[in-house]
Amino acid sequence: MNSQYTHNTAPTQFVEVDGIRFAYRRYGNPIGTPIVLLQHFMGNLDNYDPAITNALAHGREVILTDNAGVGLSTGTAPDTVAGMARDAASLIDALRLEHVDLFGFSMGGHVAQQIAVDRPELVRRLVLVGTGPRGGDHMDQLAPDVVPLFQTAHEPQDLMWLPIFFSPSEASQAAGRHFLERIRARTDDRDVPVSEATIAAHLAAAHEWGAAAPDSFDYLKGIPHPALVVNGSNDIVIPTINSYILQQNLPNAELILFPDSNHGSHFQFTELFNRYVTDFVDR
Amino acid sequence: MNSQYTHNTAPTQFVEVDGIRFAYRRYGNPIGTPIVLLQHFMGNLDNYDPAITNALAHGREVILTDNAGVGLSTGTAPDTVAGMARDAASLIDALRLEHVDLFGFSMGGHVAQQIAVDRPELVRRLVLVGTGPRGGDHMDQLAPDVVPLFQTAHEPQDLMWLPIFFSPSEASQAAGRHFLERIRARTDDRDVPVSEATIAAHLAAAHEWGAAAPDSFDYLKGIPHPALVVNGSNDIVIPTINSYILQQNLPNAELILFPDSNHGSHFQFTELFNRYVTDFVDR
Repeated sequence: MNSQYTHNTAPTQFVEVDGIRFAYRRYGNPIGTPIVLLQHFMGNLDNYDPAITNALAHGREVILTDNAGVGLSTGTAPDTVAGMARDAASLIDALRLEHVDLFGFSMGGHVAQQIAVDRPELVRRLVLVGTGPRGGDHMDQLAPDVVPLFQTAHEPQDLMWLPIFFSPSEASQAAGRHFLERIRARTDDRDVPVSEATIAAHLAAAHEWGAAAPDSFDYLKGIPHPALVVNGSNDIVIPTINSYILQQNLPNAELILFPDSNHGSHFQFTELFNRYVTDFVDR
Repeated sequence: MNSQYTHNTAPTQFVEVDGIRFAYRRYGNPIGTPIVLLQHFMGNLDNYDPAITNALAHGREVILTDNAGVGLSTGTAPDTVAGMARDAASLIDALRLEHVDLFGFSMGGHVAQQIAVDRPELVRRLVLVGTGPRGGDHMDQLAPDVVPLFQTAHEPQDLMWLPIFFSPSEASQAAGRHFLERIRARTDDRDVPVSEATIAAHLAAAHEWGAAAPDSFDYLKGIPHPALVVNGSNDIVIPTINSYILQQNLPNAELILFPDSNHGSHFQFTELFNRYVTDFVDR
């Protein structure tokens, strides 16, 4: 039934767990292990890239999620990654998915790691894009010149993602404008902006996750799942070295870094990324 | 004419330049840009992996090379990478190849970088495997526990590559044994071992290349060629961080790091590596 839909036509659906009504979209070919996508800070269901999700949907069901307190999901956004992981896992359970691949981008990558730690049997493979480990390098707070990029008003507001996801080069910015066209293309049944309260809670969660602590990478040894770690050459949000640290400390991780790119390298090298990621989840 | 041959049947050929008789093998489909392979320390024509070269040969000519003083090539091995790069470029010129992709593994990767600096117009794309930049991290000499791995006698001697190219894991060592079967499969017209004099000269070249110096990565900004940088998660010969440094300093490089692997990750994840590398040189 779900395979009749694509990214732009899949209806927003809802499932209620413990008083939280989670918003999600689900579509794709129900032959492979379903893949659950976990969104970045300030993103909702409309910030997933159709060029990526439609490619994934050829070989599996794709489940796009709003975590608690995000967009059309109700509930209170937790101020820890542990809380966000509990909520996301409860959504996966409510959808009766027993074994999933997780695709976490940025803060969604923190959540994916935490689910793999807390619920290892639920997870088959991890795709960790533009993310980093607990207590990573310069992850406790955003760089001073990056903070304003998240606070500047634009018209339309999604222009904020151009300097955050893409490098200053002409080629990267052009890729960014194509990305914006893609995420604007869905016209009906769109999600709603993330609230200020949720933004504040998620900022606190990111600070707590990023705070350096002794042995803060040790938990990675307890994530045996095959992982594909991907980032841009110069991620200004979660410095690229953190992707290297993930690969070096996860027992079974492959790393891919793209040239001339920033936090959203997968939105820039989308065709190539799709070949890598579908190859990885097809295994 | 060359496409009738494969790795194990391509005859060893010779070309003379300035009194040096270079040994090489050349075969493959003459449709794409030819790819020239530059060998690692102590390796000769029989140390290239047929599983990789045959895959490359589907879409282009493959030219396996012995640099000056190596195996069946005559001449004196230079004791600098600059000298090795001059020799390798003179071989490429003698074969009347005007535009090539370079595939350098380990010390062959140093040579490939130097050719790209000295002869930028000769090079289209770079594949840099298990290698590092001039003055890289812990590259001036081998780690004390690694030195004996290059000096221990084995019967047959190629068993030395198991701990050098592969990780201690059972899976990696098993991959290593398959690799040895592959490089032993050619029975006729084999190359001869690298001489002690050449080993000493190349060791000096590696020391000189690896010696840290101020601004030693600056030259990488002058290599605009698209580059694919590949390594294992824990390269004990040229520490993995050097592949990261290459990617961070080359203007247009993609990095791939494989899990549970060592200096010879491409001999371990060969099928996956072949998909990545053929995708890269097909572009």
